[in-house]
Amino acid sequence: MSDAPPRRLEAFVVEGLPEVRPGDDLALLLAATPYEHGDVLVVAHKVVSKAEGALRRLAEVTPGERALALAREHGKDPRHVQVILEESATVVRAERGVLICRTHHGFVCANAGVDASNAPEAGTIVTLPRNPDASARALRAALPSRPAVVIADSFGRAWRHGQCDVAIGLAGMAALDDWRGRRDPAGLELRATAIAIADEAAAAADLVRDKASREPAVVVRGLERFVTEEDGPGAAALVRPLAEDLFA
Amino acid sequence: MSDAPPRRLEAFVVEGLPEVRPGDDLALLLAATPYEHGDVLVVAHKVVSKAEGALRRLAEVTPGERALALAREHGKDPRHVQVILEESATVVRAERGVLICRTHHGFVCANAGVDASNAPEAGTIVTLPRNPDASARALRAALPSRPAVVIADSFGRAWRHGQCDVAIGLAGMAALDDWRGRRDPAGLELRATAIAIADEAAAAADLVRDKASREPAVVVRGLERFVTEEDGPGAAALVRPLAEDLFA
Repeated sequence: MSDAPPRRLEAFVVEGLPEVRPGDDLALLLAATPYEHGDVLVVAHKVVSKAEGALRRLAEVTPGERALALAREHGKDPRHVQVILEESATVVRAERGVLICRTHHGFVCANAGVDASNAPEAGTIVTLPRNPDASARALRAALPSRPAVVIADSFGRAWRHGQCDVAIGLAGMAALDDWRGRRDPAGLELRATAIAIADEAAAAADLVRDKASREPAVVVRGLERFVTEEDGPGAAALVRPLAEDLFA
Repeated sequence: MSDAPPRRLEAFVVEGLPEVRPGDDLALLLAATPYEHGDVLVVAHKVVSKAEGALRRLAEVTPGERALALAREHGKDPRHVQVILEESATVVRAERGVLICRTHHGFVCANAGVDASNAPEAGTIVTLPRNPDASARALRAALPSRPAVVIADSFGRAWRHGQCDVAIGLAGMAALDDWRGRRDPAGLELRATAIAIADEAAAAADLVRDKASREPAVVVRGLERFVTEEDGPGAAALVRPLAEDLFA
């Protein structure tokens, strides 16, 4: 047992945010919240994408042959599929109307994160930020008290129903809490090797958001032991190279 | 926007628990905490397994041929591998000293959840509870104020580094928050189909635990909208049948 005070985590919605539109200064909108030292600000990627203009107008997309074929096969809009393909390094699997893709960032998720819901206007679709770690660093640098910043998206999982929020961008917080070599009270090495704390923070934040309302930002308080002065390696540290993957 | 008060989540460790040993009344140990209506109690499976005697003495295990071969190939104790095989319906993958298994419950995880660390004595290994949903229901029934109960374990994930805690047992809380058919403010159907809130609650709880200390139980407060009078279908609702799996 340590002498540290009992651990406590709090998470609450950043209130009063307007609808975010292309060109908005997201940091300015988020700066009204009084952050405390060691806070972690979790932001749904959608508002980061919108502010950065990571959007595509379907009317301006010309589907290629592969997009046309996949769209036919899966009952999707071929322009939407074209954008998914442009956002993807590889299509891992295509079945029952869902394309599981590895994005250029290395994330494996449905439709390469391309989404028509919560878009700023009809006929527009939202993509993932070009470089979510850079987006997180920029946001952090512009916020008072420099909270750690997690940019989150909801990903499906292998073998389990439902989605969980995970970190796709990160600044100022360790992505992993590495337990390799640490031991239990009896001196045995712990089975857990590294806890994906940035993903767990994204998941905790998701529990307080209402996806249908406009609640894209959540403060998670109580993780200061993981918050770092340096921005660190970001969520890129969570991407497991295909060749290393044991699970899939 | 709803008129509901702003959402807030809190999570804190249940303090003062002794080391749990086979035959201990875990509910009695956990009953000293004053739960509030709508609380979710997240318990690391390890203490549930220990209290229930879900343990194996290595000295009493006779490895079969397959265990001997796998142990040789992966540098593991053949008796440990034998227990892993007994806990598994199938071995999904075996590589670099890790066996990724589908347990009899349907969970896909490293070594079928069999673990030597934090065991009650040397030469003993801990398995997952036989029926974690039943364990959760029994615990809930025996606790004052009947908090929802999540039994958690740390699982690795496909394509991402690190482990996250997930729900392997559940009583009194929806496993999934189903968003199918719900719409964004513009009337477009949301991409997210179902949020694995029980897994997210397990993840949130994990952020406050210290795995090396004895902090196996965490109260998560602020999820009362997901807490149900009925025990519900449990974490079994999170298991995706192999045939349906899009991701792996």
